[in-house]
Amino acid sequence: MPELRKDPIVGRWVIISVERARRPNDFTPSPVKTTGGNCAFCEGNETKTPEEVLAYRSGGEPANSPGWTLRVVPNKFPALRIEGELEPIGEGLYDKMNGIGAHEVIIETPDHQATLASLDEVAVANVFWAYRERLNDLKKDPRFKYVLIFKNHGEAAGASLEHSHSQLIATPIVPIMVAEELSNAAQYFRRKERCVWCDIIKQERQTGTRVVMEEAGFMALAPFAPRFPFETWVLPTAHRSAYEEISPEEASSLARLVRAFLARMNEVLLDPPFNFMLHTAPLQDPALDHFHWHLELIPKLTKIAGFEWGSGFFINPTPPEEAVKYLRGEVP
Amino acid sequence: MPELRKDPIVGRWVIISVERARRPNDFTPSPVKTTGGNCAFCEGNETKTPEEVLAYRSGGEPANSPGWTLRVVPNKFPALRIEGELEPIGEGLYDKMNGIGAHEVIIETPDHQATLASLDEVAVANVFWAYRERLNDLKKDPRFKYVLIFKNHGEAAGASLEHSHSQLIATPIVPIMVAEELSNAAQYFRRKERCVWCDIIKQERQTGTRVVMEEAGFMALAPFAPRFPFETWVLPTAHRSAYEEISPEEASSLARLVRAFLARMNEVLLDPPFNFMLHTAPLQDPALDHFHWHLELIPKLTKIAGFEWGSGFFINPTPPEEAVKYLRGEVP
Repeated sequence: MPELRKDPIVGRWVIISVERARRPNDFTPSPVKTTGGNCAFCEGNETKTPEEVLAYRSGGEPANSPGWTLRVVPNKFPALRIEGELEPIGEGLYDKMNGIGAHEVIIETPDHQATLASLDEVAVANVFWAYRERLNDLKKDPRFKYVLIFKNHGEAAGASLEHSHSQLIATPIVPIMVAEELSNAAQYFRRKERCVWCDIIKQERQTGTRVVMEEAGFMALAPFAPRFPFETWVLPTAHRSAYEEISPEEASSLARLVRAFLARMNEVLLDPPFNFMLHTAPLQDPALDHFHWHLELIPKLTKIAGFEWGSGFFINPTPPEEAVKYLRGEVP
Repeated sequence: MPELRKDPIVGRWVIISVERARRPNDFTPSPVKTTGGNCAFCEGNETKTPEEVLAYRSGGEPANSPGWTLRVVPNKFPALRIEGELEPIGEGLYDKMNGIGAHEVIIETPDHQATLASLDEVAVANVFWAYRERLNDLKKDPRFKYVLIFKNHGEAAGASLEHSHSQLIATPIVPIMVAEELSNAAQYFRRKERCVWCDIIKQERQTGTRVVMEEAGFMALAPFAPRFPFETWVLPTAHRSAYEEISPEEASSLARLVRAFLARMNEVLLDPPFNFMLHTAPLQDPALDHFHWHLELIPKLTKIAGFEWGSGFFINPTPPEEAVKYLRGEVP
């Protein structure tokens, strides 16, 4: 059973996962398993995954059989386990609890060769719609406080399987990074009566220096203080705190923007490995004046080293104003 | 001139460094420059570095000439610049300041082939002594609030030069990770009248389950909630907040412990890339009842991916109680 443990100094939670590599010689680098025929995410291999929790099929085929365009399944090697009750336990000055949560994989396409950037607009909109459906379903479980949806693309960005997919992890604790955004944004709101992301959108539109692109209600922008070169945030231009209230039209607009952005990014940075992470409001607290959902997208171009791990400062060699020129196509 | 920029939501500072790679095609992976003859850190190549700020020589040779055993020089491509006055500037809702700071390299040995693990005890003690001397010198500059000392060993851990070295970066702001340790530890102290690290040492000694080794006043332990497999902390067993007050005898004991630990780690994990980071009290505030200096050492075995970047949670597949068994040699 995995365990959630809290650092007694900074309060950061860690998942001690026992389903994965653990002994010293398990860490030698392994090649990505790219074999199409054996890929558990490919059409025809449905029995190689745990049973699906959601699938999009147009032909009315039975569950866990071919004919789908998108499929959501529990992760076969989950970081957290769905079974059991939460039990916070003390151990001297330490705090821990059993590793209750959900860990699911959103298989974005039946095609082993496709990527989120190569899928058509309808398929990408379906990915964003599936995120909504899974959030709304997991919200019914009172043990879960948060669902983090994320994507690892490419081995250097942490993907262990090549077939295009995103993941979600539901946790019994609001993650520290989201908790910090929430508390700082609440403080900003108390001082100004305005959402800080709404203010950012307004200022970026006025100056125009960091806007990458806009598309019917969504903006992609380079943040003022990006941790990573070419880091980009995507957010709805109107105030929205809960991602799971996205409409079908909004999911299509978001898909258009993200496809256009990935196409530009892949052209400029030559198909880089990347991660994205969706920050939405906590499950049980969806309507917030001070929180604005957003997708953070980070190409994996630099290495994180001792200075970053020790300080929490990031050294970014590419000013966002320069990154934007490339992403807009103003510099060849 | 580099710039320090603050994220308007979470308050994290970022260094926008303009001395380094910045354009899209600068990010294609480059091999480590391993050529001994051309290495700026090798003996005989002293003119290839900026002028030394500290060196240990037994023979009275002039500065910036051969004959040294350890040498500290400014980084040729500094993340922050030493010249100028601090100027905090607003830009609408954003905050920034010019990138004032110091960035130095501690060249640990004249020998291109040596590593911290292969150096003898005197040489390693000299490295730890040089840290003390640089902290005491940089403390005189009132612009600097903190000095982070760190080491990147191996390309995967972010080292761009093979020749064994550590680095320091002096910043005009206390880094967010240290600030969080300070404020949480102060809260613990107010509640208990005890240092949290002293309490950890006491509990770990009682249970013994996570102690890796001890050596005359220093302990290496696996933390209860480690972010990374085989993460290890080294700290003085008596309460000490300011690293720069280390005595020559303590520097020797620390050297013995770190050498013994690196030897074990290299045996168990086959010479892994690693980082270490020294957390000491802020420069202008050295004597603190609630802060205890410590060295955090993290072998680079796993990849950080979307879940970690988005949540601040870490997934660690190796329970520290298991890592300790390998590091103590109890499991072959």
